[in-house]
Amino acid sequence: MSLDPNSTPQRLQRPSAGHRTPSTIANELSKLELPPPSNLHLNPVDLVSPMSAISNMSAVSEDTGDISGPEPEAIIAARHKARSESMSEQLSAQLSQMRLPQPERIFGPDEGESDAAREGEGRAVRPEDWEKIYGDDEIPEAVKEPVRMSHSKQASRVNPEDLPKQQTIPEDVEEPPVKSTGVAKEQKITPFDVEGGVDAEGRSLGIDYNKTVQKFGASLISQDLLERFEKVTGVKPHPLLRRGTFFSHRDLNIILDRYEKGQPFYLYTGRGPSSDSMHMGHLIPFMFTAYLQRTFNVPLVIEITGTMKKIKGKKPLDLLRHYKRMGQDNIKDIIACGFIPEKTYIMSNLRRMGGAFYDNVVLMAKTITLSQSRNVFGFSDADNVGMYHFAAIQATPAFSNSFPQIFGERDDIPCLIPCAIDQDPYFLLTRDAADRLGYKKPALLHSKFLPALQGANTKMSASQENSAIFMTDDAKKIQKKIRSHAFSGGRATQEEHRRLGGDPDVDVAYQYISFFEEDDERMNQLAKDYRAGTLSSGEMKDHCIAVIQKIVGDFQTARAAVTDEIVEYFQDPTRKIDPRPVPKA
Amino acid sequence: MSLDPNSTPQRLQRPSAGHRTPSTIANELSKLELPPPSNLHLNPVDLVSPMSAISNMSAVSEDTGDISGPEPEAIIAARHKARSESMSEQLSAQLSQMRLPQPERIFGPDEGESDAAREGEGRAVRPEDWEKIYGDDEIPEAVKEPVRMSHSKQASRVNPEDLPKQQTIPEDVEEPPVKSTGVAKEQKITPFDVEGGVDAEGRSLGIDYNKTVQKFGASLISQDLLERFEKVTGVKPHPLLRRGTFFSHRDLNIILDRYEKGQPFYLYTGRGPSSDSMHMGHLIPFMFTAYLQRTFNVPLVIEITGTMKKIKGKKPLDLLRHYKRMGQDNIKDIIACGFIPEKTYIMSNLRRMGGAFYDNVVLMAKTITLSQSRNVFGFSDADNVGMYHFAAIQATPAFSNSFPQIFGERDDIPCLIPCAIDQDPYFLLTRDAADRLGYKKPALLHSKFLPALQGANTKMSASQENSAIFMTDDAKKIQKKIRSHAFSGGRATQEEHRRLGGDPDVDVAYQYISFFEEDDERMNQLAKDYRAGTLSSGEMKDHCIAVIQKIVGDFQTARAAVTDEIVEYFQDPTRKIDPRPVPKA
Repeated sequence: MSLDPNSTPQRLQRPSAGHRTPSTIANELSKLELPPPSNLHLNPVDLVSPMSAISNMSAVSEDTGDISGPEPEAIIAARHKARSESMSEQLSAQLSQMRLPQPERIFGPDEGESDAAREGEGRAVRPEDWEKIYGDDEIPEAVKEPVRMSHSKQASRVNPEDLPKQQTIPEDVEEPPVKSTGVAKEQKITPFDVEGGVDAEGRSLGIDYNKTVQKFGASLISQDLLERFEKVTGVKPHPLLRRGTFFSHRDLNIILDRYEKGQPFYLYTGRGPSSDSMHMGHLIPFMFTAYLQRTFNVPLVIEITGTMKKIKGKKPLDLLRHYKRMGQDNIKDIIACGFIPEKTYIMSNLRRMGGAFYDNVVLMAKTITLSQSRNVFGFSDADNVGMYHFAAIQATPAFSNSFPQIFGERDDIPCLIPCAIDQDPYFLLTRDAADRLGYKKPALLHSKFLPALQGANTKMSASQENSAIFMTDDAKKIQKKIRSHAFSGGRATQEEHRRLGGDPDVDVAYQYISFFEEDDERMNQLAKDYRAGTLSSGEMKDHCIAVIQKIVGDFQTARAAVTDEIVEYFQDPTRKIDPRPVPKA
Repeated sequence: MSLDPNSTPQRLQRPSAGHRTPSTIANELSKLELPPPSNLHLNPVDLVSPMSAISNMSAVSEDTGDISGPEPEAIIAARHKARSESMSEQLSAQLSQMRLPQPERIFGPDEGESDAAREGEGRAVRPEDWEKIYGDDEIPEAVKEPVRMSHSKQASRVNPEDLPKQQTIPEDVEEPPVKSTGVAKEQKITPFDVEGGVDAEGRSLGIDYNKTVQKFGASLISQDLLERFEKVTGVKPHPLLRRGTFFSHRDLNIILDRYEKGQPFYLYTGRGPSSDSMHMGHLIPFMFTAYLQRTFNVPLVIEITGTMKKIKGKKPLDLLRHYKRMGQDNIKDIIACGFIPEKTYIMSNLRRMGGAFYDNVVLMAKTITLSQSRNVFGFSDADNVGMYHFAAIQATPAFSNSFPQIFGERDDIPCLIPCAIDQDPYFLLTRDAADRLGYKKPALLHSKFLPALQGANTKMSASQENSAIFMTDDAKKIQKKIRSHAFSGGRATQEEHRRLGGDPDVDVAYQYISFFEEDDERMNQLAKDYRAGTLSSGEMKDHCIAVIQKIVGDFQTARAAVTDEIVEYFQDPTRKIDPRPVPKA
């Protein structure tokens, strides 16, 4: 697997004898041979059905017609000039009609522990709210990107509605199998809460990502775009990309254009620390980002925000310190995901706020009106001004001149932001502001939520021990969790399973394997055998256990090798990073 | 005069030969003998009438009874604990009923050039709005400090209502003298706009500071407090203090207690750069602060905020840089006011944001709700989140642990903030937040607005060339401005003036002299001769011209001596400052 999370940190471990300063670390790191991205060239993955492949073909011409090449900068500039004035007001008016989610943290899937989430639906996005954004052709481009491809014509690779509606039941759950009988409750997707729809009899349906991406106004990732990615980079799309976990984007084409032309760009992702124990759902996006960095060989900035949950109970400054420590702990986990050390800068806001970065925070804050912040994040009058202001903090790393040690004063270098789809509204504000500040718009790559062990219609939660594999779980615990809690696509009895076969598409074990397994043939075989009933649910889980134990075990080894010195190295704001693209071999 | 603004910088000029680093500058500065505060012990100033002295007497017992000594910390803590939870909500509810001013800058008198000001009264505080704060006994203490003295019983030293209602006319204005016939338009006081009331015939009345301070819920400075100040410090109150320009306070007694006991405290003031050309109205508060610093011999922090007026027209980052440069220019002016270099830290937010300071910005932002920020500053939904968040930036220097190079992690050292009365709402939020953050409340010393040349009912404006003496005006320009534009308390003709006498209390020339003249006997004599008609209006202006030419000339000499190195020295965040009180000689 190219995504071996411990490859780099293991190498880091070697020169551990003797005291090392940040500069000796830098020297050592610069000499390391980093693992090349995988270069396999296999057939398109089998998860793309013939039907959807055809749909993809039909979408291609629209896709390439509208977004395959970047528009000339002059045209873009003129167009931006004409519309940027009114854009914010339009955006604001549009958003003011909606009930939108309140963020506490960024980028990753929800912790499931925020107050807002517990308070329930008051701040959630109702589907009809998103409809208000998507349904109107008059809305500004910042909200609704030019509709370059017909979402409705193109089938998602893992569209739940395409799934066979066969009866499924986990092995260890008593409830009888039932048939879905229609949608009684719409799905809900916010930074805090991800739930699939519920049918008339209270049973959960999957999350409809087609519907979601339509409502967010982004573009689905077409088979053509995947092929272009592979052609341009010479690297096979990561399993998370080719199997549809990262499924939607804005301007990924422009980033591929730049890569092809040898023009600089960078990656930006982040985390708002809110838990000591990071789970697989937290780390997989970082592992994927590490893959992207190694594929493109570009700088990466990771923002650790100063988000805090509460001010009561603990003395405020102590609470802040608690979150600072948590952030530094999280950084160790993040480093263990295997980035290119010389090209990665991890910025903790609470440690490094200032300078050119702060300049952009100030400017960004000036472009966001109260209406926008309130409506995008669903704040109330009783919420504090720090929350309203936070969007500026999250937006700022998307502007290249925020990092003078990398880009000097260059403000024309765009970034690509891998993030969960629920974070898209933040970056709509950012893209809108980029126009007004004279900066480049960030490109985006959206992921679905990584399903909790309980099934595809929820996401992992740090506050629910059995919903997720934690990166601190040992082999035995991983085995127990998957055996006891992983939702199965198998049949109620072994006999029935052998006779009727299982459904890999709703089988959590199969899905977890698919996040990491490079070998498409092996995935095909597993799915085939499962459907045939020759592979039992328990056997599928055993395969999954082996994969996850390897990933988590390797991660733990890598994590153990991350010293405080390495943590400081990654956070050194004075360390120069070369932003120049490396010519393709 | 003890307030010689160039005394320190002139000394700085001496060791100018050869290249100097910040540390050599620090060495040189530490050896300098700084001018001691004046030690004159004159009689109480003649502006306090016998009547008001009696009122002061009656106010004394209440005053000392409630705030002469600090309450035991335990009692304060318990009281704070009980009420701090609901305080913000109450404050918020209270403020939500009001139309309050929108700030663009802090502390000093208004530039008169903000958009908000030009847009007129939409955001101004109407007297009936302030009434809502003051009139209600149930409002939280953060809004209405414990009423320790009876404002109504105590006459202000410069209460316009006590002024003789004689006819006045400036020498160079054609309009005939008229009598005031009652109040038709109430006075308006906001950070943007200061206008006295207007009578039924459209003529302006003075600003009623008694009414203002009552509405702000602060305490007038009593004669007793002035005497205590002199007794405790051994220094005669500055003309600006004893003659009532600094006329109101919160907790000044507590600061004097600390000084008496040798407990540490510090001073905090600031400026939001919004003009290249600073006028006397901008600098006089800094000159007064320098006097306070030399009197108490304590650390001083000066915040230069990153406030900007516009984002349109200029490219945003260029606009930011413009304001940064302006801030650095302003710092030269500020340094020329004569602070104790080793004990003064000037912090430009845009240069030095970060670290412990930013921690407190984050915490402070968490204590201010949207309602509070909107209502205190009169923001609308279309205003940007930077403006809503700004109160946290202005509040943070009031907490001692924001400056680790001075106070380490000590968070229990209060500050005294000299500021214009219109800035009081900012610091009400700060005082409220201090409770909730477990920090000390800042004490405040409020000034009236320095009158424009046109009279006591306006204030100097940087955008109106002839409203103010600019610190760059040469001697000739000063002479011309005062001769042509200074509102006179003299009579229409020389003959009439000799026969009926003039009114020094509305005479701008006389007032300008009074800001600087240490010698009370001289002031008495000037007033006496003016009233007797033996001193002409032109002669009074000539006296004023001489005083102002000296002040401005000395300032310009001092300003010329402020090198870039000195500017850097004052802004060096790594320079340690000793916070320990210096024992009185």
